[in-house]
Amino acid sequence: MVHGVAICMARDACLRRYSPGMNRYQLLADALGRRIEQGLYRPGERLPSVRALAQEHGVSLATVQQAYRLLEDRGLVEPRPKSGYFVRLERRAIELPRVTRPARWPVEVSGWEPVRELMTSTPDSVRVQLGRGLPDTEAPTLAPLLAGMARLARRPGNAGLSYDSIQGVAALREQVARLQLDAGCVLTADDIVITSGAHEALAIALRATCQEGDIVAVDSPTFHGVMQTLKGQGLKALEIPTDPRTGISLPALELALEQWPVRAIQLTPSCNNPLGYCMPEANKRQLVALARKHDLAVIEDDVYGDLLYSYPRGRALKAFDEDDRVVLCSSFSKTLAPGLRVGWVAPGRYAERILHLKYIGTGCTAPQPQLAIAEFIAAGHYTVHVRRMRAQYQRNRDLMSAWVQRYFPAGTRVSQPQGSFLLWVELPEACDSHRLNRELLAQSVQIACGSIFSASGKYRNCLRLNYAQAQRPGIEEGVRRVGEAACRLLDEALPRSLATLA
Amino acid sequence: MVHGVAICMARDACLRRYSPGMNRYQLLADALGRRIEQGLYRPGERLPSVRALAQEHGVSLATVQQAYRLLEDRGLVEPRPKSGYFVRLERRAIELPRVTRPARWPVEVSGWEPVRELMTSTPDSVRVQLGRGLPDTEAPTLAPLLAGMARLARRPGNAGLSYDSIQGVAALREQVARLQLDAGCVLTADDIVITSGAHEALAIALRATCQEGDIVAVDSPTFHGVMQTLKGQGLKALEIPTDPRTGISLPALELALEQWPVRAIQLTPSCNNPLGYCMPEANKRQLVALARKHDLAVIEDDVYGDLLYSYPRGRALKAFDEDDRVVLCSSFSKTLAPGLRVGWVAPGRYAERILHLKYIGTGCTAPQPQLAIAEFIAAGHYTVHVRRMRAQYQRNRDLMSAWVQRYFPAGTRVSQPQGSFLLWVELPEACDSHRLNRELLAQSVQIACGSIFSASGKYRNCLRLNYAQAQRPGIEEGVRRVGEAACRLLDEALPRSLATLA
Repeated sequence: MVHGVAICMARDACLRRYSPGMNRYQLLADALGRRIEQGLYRPGERLPSVRALAQEHGVSLATVQQAYRLLEDRGLVEPRPKSGYFVRLERRAIELPRVTRPARWPVEVSGWEPVRELMTSTPDSVRVQLGRGLPDTEAPTLAPLLAGMARLARRPGNAGLSYDSIQGVAALREQVARLQLDAGCVLTADDIVITSGAHEALAIALRATCQEGDIVAVDSPTFHGVMQTLKGQGLKALEIPTDPRTGISLPALELALEQWPVRAIQLTPSCNNPLGYCMPEANKRQLVALARKHDLAVIEDDVYGDLLYSYPRGRALKAFDEDDRVVLCSSFSKTLAPGLRVGWVAPGRYAERILHLKYIGTGCTAPQPQLAIAEFIAAGHYTVHVRRMRAQYQRNRDLMSAWVQRYFPAGTRVSQPQGSFLLWVELPEACDSHRLNRELLAQSVQIACGSIFSASGKYRNCLRLNYAQAQRPGIEEGVRRVGEAACRLLDEALPRSLATLA
Repeated sequence: MVHGVAICMARDACLRRYSPGMNRYQLLADALGRRIEQGLYRPGERLPSVRALAQEHGVSLATVQQAYRLLEDRGLVEPRPKSGYFVRLERRAIELPRVTRPARWPVEVSGWEPVRELMTSTPDSVRVQLGRGLPDTEAPTLAPLLAGMARLARRPGNAGLSYDSIQGVAALREQVARLQLDAGCVLTADDIVITSGAHEALAIALRATCQEGDIVAVDSPTFHGVMQTLKGQGLKALEIPTDPRTGISLPALELALEQWPVRAIQLTPSCNNPLGYCMPEANKRQLVALARKHDLAVIEDDVYGDLLYSYPRGRALKAFDEDDRVVLCSSFSKTLAPGLRVGWVAPGRYAERILHLKYIGTGCTAPQPQLAIAEFIAAGHYTVHVRRMRAQYQRNRDLMSAWVQRYFPAGTRVSQPQGSFLLWVELPEACDSHRLNRELLAQSVQIACGSIFSASGKYRNCLRLNYAQAQRPGIEEGVRRVGEAACRLLDEALPRSLATLA
C-alpha cells in the first residue's frame, strides 16, 4: 500500500504532461488525459465544461473543443448530447507502437557509446537488468545440459579441449539441421557452420555478402548488434518502415530497392527483436521473391524463432529460398544460454567465403558446449525446455504489459510480442530514454534505450524491456521505477511547455 | 627389425636423389651424399676415385671434382693428400634452415585450400596429426582446470550461462595482467580484453590498425592464421627475411620500411611459430624503436611465449613499448587447451576500436572457461602445469629432431626450437610438401605444408611437425612415414633429373 501511495503521488506530479512543439489544444488534451489516467475523473464521470476549462487554462473555447475532440479520437472521452463530455466507461486497450518512419536514405550508423554502456554492465554494476537480451537460464529444464557439461569436462581424453574443425562439431550440426525442419528448412549437417553465437554468424554473413560502403536494408528498429556491425564494417543502413504487427513494410522496401543500390537485406522476421512481431508467411514469401528480383542476399536472424508462443513455430524466410540467397543465422543464446556462445549459420551460396571468414575470425568454436548441446537436443531435452520457456515467457509478457500500463505515463504504447521475451515501449515524445537510463542507473536499474536500435539515433522516446525473469522478486519494482522516472521526466518537460501554453 | 629393413630399402630407392634445374655436379654430389647418409660408405672409408665416378656417370672429371668439393663444403667428405676423398669421421650436426628469402615486395596472400584442408581435419579423418598446432591436453596437471569447469557447470545460478561484459571476466583479466609481469609487461586488468582465442585477438588487432589495401610487414615464414586474416581483410603481406636463430632481419625490415608505406608489423618474436626462435632482447628493443621511428603499429603474437624452455621466459616486445603502439595478443590455447577458446589482447592505444571490434565480432567471450582459468591460475596450478609442459616439450623436441635426422632425406634441415612444440623442416628443394601431404593423408598422417606459412606459396619444400605428443605410441611411426614418403618423392624426381645428367 505504501508503494501504491507513492505511485499516486509520482503520477500526480506528472499530471501536467506537455511536450515542446505541440499545439495548445494537444497540450491541454494531454493534461486532461493524464487526469483521467490517474483516476481524478472516474469512468462515466462528467468532465469540466468547455467554458470552465478555457478560463482555467487561459485559452479560447475553440482550443478546449479541439482538445476534447482529440480525446474523443483517443477513446478516452465521449460527448453526450446537451450534457457535455464524459469519461468513457470502457477504456481502450493499450495501443501498439506506431508504424515506424525512419530516415528514407542510407545512413552511417552512429551511437556506439550507449551500446557499450549496456554491454559492459555486469551484475555487480546493475541490480535490475531490464536492458540486455538475457533469457532465463535458471529453469530446471536446463539441468541436463549443465550435467552434460560437467560430465564432458571430466571425461578422459577430453574431446572438448582440442581444436575443433572450422565447421564445427558434426553431431551438433546434425541436430541443428534436424531442428530446422520445424522452421520449414531442409538442411543437412554439411549446410551448417557453427559460430561463436549468432553475433559471429551475422558479422561474417554481412562481410561475406557486402563490401565497405555498401547499403544494407534493415527492418527498423533493429538489433543493436547488427547496427554496430554495419558501423564497424563501414556499411550504410537503409532503415525500412516497419509495422509492429507484420514487420518490414514490403511496399516501402520495394520502393527503396528501386531507388537505392542495396546489396543485402538484414532482418529478424520471426519473433522480432525488439518489436516482437512475426512476419506473416505470405510476407516472408514475398520478401524472398523481392530479393530474387533484385538479386540481393538476405541475412535472416532467427535467434528467437523457436520461442514463438504458438505452436508450430512457423516457417523461416529460408524456407522460401529457392536459390540459396538467404543466409540463415541463429544460436542457442536465447533458447538455452548466451554464455555458451554457440550459434550457427546456414550460409547457402556464400558457404566458401563464410567458412574462410569463420576461420579468420575465431579459428573455431569451443567444442565442449557444442558436444553438450548436441547431447541435450538428441535426448529430447531441448524440446521440453523450449516448450516450458515459451509458456513462461508468454505469461511474463502479460505481466510486464500490465505493469507498463499501470506504472507508465498515459500515451505510452507497447508492443504485443508473439514470442521471445522483449517488450518495446514507446513513451510520449517528450521522454528521452537516454536521460531516463541515466537516472535509472543511479538506482541500479538498466533499460535498453530505443536509439541503439536505429542507425541514426531515432526512437529516443522508446525503450526495450526484458521480461524473461519478470516473475522474479524485484522486477516489478524495477519496472515501477522506470515508469516513475518516465513520469518525472515528462513532468520536468512541463514548465517549458506551459510557457508556450500560457 | 622388419621396420629397419623396410627403411633401408626405402632409402636405397632414393639413393639417386636429384632435382630438376640443378647442375650435373650438384646432382652427382647429392647422389653421393645420399649414399653416405645411407651408410653405403662408412665414416673414414675411402670414396670412389674421380676417374671411376666420371666413368660410372658419364660425366667429365671436372664435374666429379666439383661434386666432391661441394660435399667437402657440406662437411660430408674430406680430401686426404694423394689418397683421394674419404667420408668424414665426425658427422656434422643437422643444419638449421637457411635464412629465408621471401618476395621483396608486398603480395596478396594466396592459398586458402591447404589451410582449409588442415583446419577441417578431425581425429576421425586423420590418425596421426602432426600438422595442427595442438598442445598436449592430457597432462595430469590440467586436472584441476577440468574439475573447476565441472564444478562451475553445476554451481547454482550458474554465472557461466549469462552474457559476459564485452571486455571479459574481471577475475581472469587480473590474473592475465599478473602473469604478464614475467614477460616484463606492466598491465592492469583494465588494459586487457578477453577474446575467443588469439585468433580473434590477432584479427581485430589487424582490423583496428589497418585498412583494406594496407601493407603489413611480417616475419617469414609466419602463422598461417595471420596469413589468411591478411587475405580476408584485403591486406598485403610484406614478408621480411627471417633468421631461424634470431628472427626477423632488422636491416631487411628497415630497408623495407623505407621503401614501402607499411602500416603495421605483425610477428611472433618469442618461441616463433613455425621456426621456434626467440628474438634476442636487443633485437626486440630495436624493432620497437624502428616502429616508433616509422610510426607503425606492432602486433605481437605471444601465444607460445610462456613455453620457452629456459627460465625466466624473457621479455615480450610489449615490454619495450613506450607509447602504447604494441598490441599484445595471446591466449591459453598453447599453454592450456585450444578448445577453451580463451585468448586476450592488450590493445594499447587502439583500445576503443578494439573493444568495438570485439563486440561486433562475437559479442562476448564465453564466461565459464574464463572463470575456470582464473581460478586455475589464482590457485597456482598454471605455473605448475606450464613448468611441466616446458620440460616435456623440450624432451620431445630432441626426440623429434633425432627422428627427422634418422628418417628424412640427407640435406634435410631442421629448426632448433627454444620453446613451444613445433619443428620446422626444410627438405631438399625437389621435395614438394603438398604432394607429400596428399600421399600421407592416404596413410592417415597429416603434416602442415610449408607454403601455408607464406603469403606467396613459398616454402613448398618445407613442413611443420608438431611434437607436443611425441612420446605417444604411433608418433614415431608417423614421422617415419613422413620421412619415407619424402624419400620416395625425391626418388621419383630422379628420372627427369638423370635425363639432364646423362
